[in-house]
Formats: sequence, C-alpha cells, structure tokens
Amino acid sequence: MRIAIDAMGGDNAPKEILAGALEAIDLLAEEDELILVGPEKEIEAGLPPVASRKGKITVVDAPDIIAMDAVPIETLRRKPKSSIAVIAKLAKRGQADAVISAGNTGACVAAFQMRMRNLPGVNRPGICVVFPTPGGPVAICDVGANIACKPIHLYQYGVMASVYARHLLRIDNPRVGVMSIGSEDAKGNEIVKKARALMKSDSRMNLIGNIEGRDIFKGACDVVVSDGFTGNVMLKLAEGLVDGLFKAIKVELMEEQLPLVMKFKPVMTRIYRKYDYNEYGGALLLGVNGTAIICHGSSQSRTIKNAILASKKFYTEKINDKIVEYLSGACVRTTDE
Amino acid sequence: MRIAIDAMGGDNAPKEILAGALEAIDLLAEEDELILVGPEKEIEAGLPPVASRKGKITVVDAPDIIAMDAVPIETLRRKPKSSIAVIAKLAKRGQADAVISAGNTGACVAAFQMRMRNLPGVNRPGICVVFPTPGGPVAICDVGANIACKPIHLYQYGVMASVYARHLLRIDNPRVGVMSIGSEDAKGNEIVKKARALMKSDSRMNLIGNIEGRDIFKGACDVVVSDGFTGNVMLKLAEGLVDGLFKAIKVELMEEQLPLVMKFKPVMTRIYRKYDYNEYGGALLLGVNGTAIICHGSSQSRTIKNAILASKKFYTEKINDKIVEYLSGACVRTTDE
Repeated sequence: MRIAIDAMGGDNAPKEILAGALEAIDLLAEEDELILVGPEKEIEAGLPPVASRKGKITVVDAPDIIAMDAVPIETLRRKPKSSIAVIAKLAKRGQADAVISAGNTGACVAAFQMRMRNLPGVNRPGICVVFPTPGGPVAICDVGANIACKPIHLYQYGVMASVYARHLLRIDNPRVGVMSIGSEDAKGNEIVKKARALMKSDSRMNLIGNIEGRDIFKGACDVVVSDGFTGNVMLKLAEGLVDGLFKAIKVELMEEQLPLVMKFKPVMTRIYRKYDYNEYGGALLLGVNGTAIICHGSSQSRTIKNAILASKKFYTEKINDKIVEYLSGACVRTTDE
Repeated sequence: MRIAIDAMGGDNAPKEILAGALEAIDLLAEEDELILVGPEKEIEAGLPPVASRKGKITVVDAPDIIAMDAVPIETLRRKPKSSIAVIAKLAKRGQADAVISAGNTGACVAAFQMRMRNLPGVNRPGICVVFPTPGGPVAICDVGANIACKPIHLYQYGVMASVYARHLLRIDNPRVGVMSIGSEDAKGNEIVKKARALMKSDSRMNLIGNIEGRDIFKGACDVVVSDGFTGNVMLKLAEGLVDGLFKAIKVELMEEQLPLVMKFKPVMTRIYRKYDYNEYGGALLLGVNGTAIICHGSSQSRTIKNAILASKKFYTEKINDKIVEYLSGACVRTTDE
C-alpha cells in the first residue's frame, strides 16, 4: 500500500509529520510505502540519511505552502504545487492508495473531493471523527465538509459512519442518532425531520431517533449524524471546553496546595490517555473514492503515526467497497433534494 | 413589580419552585408581588400558612399540567389552563410584569411569544443564556427559540444580547462574535455571512467577526450570536461534556486513592460555584414585549430565586426600552429576509 503524506500540514510541520512517518514505518509491512510530499530539500534534511532509513520512504517535491487560514478553493487554484494539491493528484493518478494531511481542512476537503471524486452512490463526502466517551467511541459525521446539508446527505452520513463503526470500531449493529434540539420526533428543523424519515425507511439502519448534545456522553448511540456546520461547532466547542476546564482545575488545585497538583497529575494523564482523540489519528473523509484522512492542525508525531495505521486499516478492510455495496442496495432515492 | 411564576415547571416542581419563591421574597421590596401559578390546592399546601407568610404572595389556579416532553403548540391549545399558558395570559393582560418558568422550553417560547408579542423593531425573539467562562461571562443568543434563523434575526440577537451584556453583565462595549466554522470572513454559511454584513454596517456594534466553538472559553468575545439550532446543540453539548468529564475524573480518582477524592472535593465545589449557570437564574427570552425568563428543567430553589432577582433587574433597568431605542436608530432594514 502507498500512503501519501502532506509533510507541511499543521502547526508542527514538518518535524512532527516526519517523526510520525518514521514511527509508523516500523509497524507497516515490507511492501508498504510512505510518500512524503512537500519542499524536497526541507523534507530530506529532516529525514535520516537514505542508507539508514528503514522501510520504503520516498519524497515527492511540492514547493508551495497553503496557510492554515487560507481560503481553500482560491488557494488551491493559485498553488497547484502545494503539498495538499500534490497528494490529491497522486491519489487521482493511482499513485497513492491513501492521502493524509494535517493542513488546512477546507483545502483538503476541496482537493480530495475534486481529484478523488465521490464513491458511486454518494452525493457529498462528510468528515467523520471519533469522540472517545465514557460509553465508548462515538463516530460523528459530518463535522465540517458540508455546510449546506440536504436530507439525503445526512442519510448517507448515517450509512457511511455505520459501516465505519461496524468494521473499524467493531461495534455490532451501531445505533444511529440524528443530532437535533430535542429527542422527540416532532423536534428539529425540516432537514433533520426529512433525513430521519429517510433513515427510518431503511430497515437495515439501527436508527434510535433524535439525540441531543448531552446524550453523546451518556452512551446513547454509536453514530451521530449531523450537518457539517453544527458538527464543526460541536467539535471545536468540545475541544475548547475540555481545555478550559482542565486549565480551571489546575488553577484551583494550585490555590489549594502544590502536593495535590502533583498527585492529581497521573489522574489527568490517565484521563487524557483514555479520552485522547489522537489515538484515532484523525478524521476520515468518508465518501470520496479513496482513503483520505484529515488530521488536527495541532497533530503530534503519534497522531500522524496513528493516522497512517488507520488509513491502512480502512484500506485493507475495504470500507469503501462495503459503503458502495450498502448504498447500491438502498431503497432510498439518491437524488439531491 | 408583579412576577408570575410557573409553580409546576421543571423536574423539581412544585417543591423547589416554591422554596425559591420563598427565598426570593426576603430579598425583594415591599411593593413587589410573587404570583405562584399552578393547581391551587397543591401550591397552598406547599406554602407556609397565610398568616406567617412574609412578603406578598398570591396564588392563581392553573389546574392543567404540560409535560416536559410535550409538543409545544399542540399542548398549549389543548391545555389553556396550564401554568405556562396562564402566566403568559397574566403578562398579556398587564397583571404580571415578568414571567418565569422552568417548564417545557418550547411551550414557554410559544406561549410568551404569542401572548406578549414582540418588541417594536424585533422580528423574532431569541433565548439568551450566559456561559460562565474563565474569561468572564459570555452571553449567547439564540439557544433554541428560533431554528429557522434569517440574517436579520441574527443581527437583532447581536443587538439584544449586547444591550443585555452592557447593562446587566456590566461589560462596556461588549465584543460580538458570530458563531461559525472558521474565524476568517470567507467561512460560514450564507446566513452567517449575510448576518455579519448587517452587523458590520452598524457602527455602534463592536463586531469582532466570526468565532469558533473553542474561542468561547478563551475570552475572545462577550456576546455570541448563533442560530437557535446550533446554539441549542452547543448548550446541551457543553452541559453533557462537563458532566461526563467530572464523572470521569471521579472514577479515576476513586481508582487512585480515596483520600485524594476527599481532597479534590473542595476543588470541584469551587469550580462548580465559579462556573455555575444557576447563578444567572435562567435564560432570558429577549425580544418579547415584557420580561420572560426560562429556567433549566433541573432548576433548584436557588436557580428560581436568582431568576426572580434577575427578572427584577431586567425590568427595573428597562432593558427592553434600551433595545427598542437601539433598534429604532438602526440603519439596518428589519424586513424579514
């Protein structure tokens, strides 16, 4: 398997990206190849000498850089030799089986969607992240690829995230909840109501109905279907809230007594480890014809390593074939309405 | 001032509601009156004998009960003698200057909006909650009254929450952020972009631009403008996440050693107290022609007490007059587009 990695993506590039690639190579098979994409000289300088490199690592030159806050489509057009544009092209030409980037999310979505195209039966790709919760992992789709969601898109997010949860999170018959503003059927906007009706008409889907924000952490379901706008706000809110709360706890502990801070540290570490989204390596862009993972901008080497391993799992388990098979058997119309 | 309270609203009614009313009466002026609304016999039984009652408390009979999960509009029609319907009618007839309920939020919004009507210049009321954050209180509007938001509604939420923040949270020139999926101007859906343009055209508003979920806890702004769907999801997500995180910490502490749990308890208590939304008493329904507070279903007596005091502050500070004055000077068209 050939995995193309954007070596310049994220706040810690290229250092952490290269470190993650080197960590992963030990865990891959001999026939696997990592293609590191970015300014060639800079990448080569960050790698051990060719002779001492383990596994198969190649470097593909991509001199342009896309800033984390650039306007996606416009920048892609202006920078065809950026690492994001180049990995997408490698996938398109069949020169890479998977692409991974911790760069500008919007640019990744635009480039991957444009070059890799959609899977048969899929109208719009969606980003799927895994929230680690006390009740187990919860797959949420979409968290930002599609901010003009139609009911059929939400239905397909339910299908894709269910297939993902079943085969990669190993959850039998995953329970699907639709993110809304009240658990009763009557609640929600028109798009939510129509999407729920589509899901209900598909007896293969284990729909539990609407869920609310607070239910995610109570083990109410395994898959959350959301429009990309709400999903993105949720993701970032959760991130900021956890951060803020841990900081607040630290401040209070400091006021109490320093020994308590030290004693509390291993507890925090355990919680961080248990609920660490870095373990999942990043978010899958479900629905594109290929394997595409978008990592958090703050990704560390271990995030990248895990993303590489996740891309291999996704690819070898043929998740895309399973999605296409599911959708081809769907009694739900796929017209974009 | 006459404050009508739904004695049957919420999970802890009528006990906690009556207790909250009795706590508040000591803190009000002699001319203030609390009107407790619900099944007369049940309420009277929960109050001290008339002779020993401090302050002015009257009871108005409302025998019907609206369930917390009932479909709002339908239920209001079927139950005209419910406590929510009756307090709304008291406000309409000028027999109450403020209404407070911890009952079914949808029913409250529908009843208050229908009976109290909108303030001149306001197209749609919005629910405004205060998030206590390490950077200070943040007012978020709307969190669930309006799930079909138009740009003009969002603009008005920015105006109303700013007036609220200035006069009740005592924040000079409050910074307004628009909840979106990226801080750059180009990001967000069409409604967000149009709303931002309206706000930008109003030089009196201290607009800082888009904000993301994580910025709320970083002190990025004092007012967050959101559509009601996203805002409601955010509110409940935050609630569930804080709950889940504290539970996870407790579990980990228990595994560590019991004495540590005991030592950590005062720290938790301080954090709870510092970031306790019960202190704000509930959420204001901004934009109705009157004073309306909707409390959390799990409200305790102290939440109700604080809601009563907040309603008095809102009323005596003439927040509604200030909103009307602001909007009458706006160069922004108020047509519903």
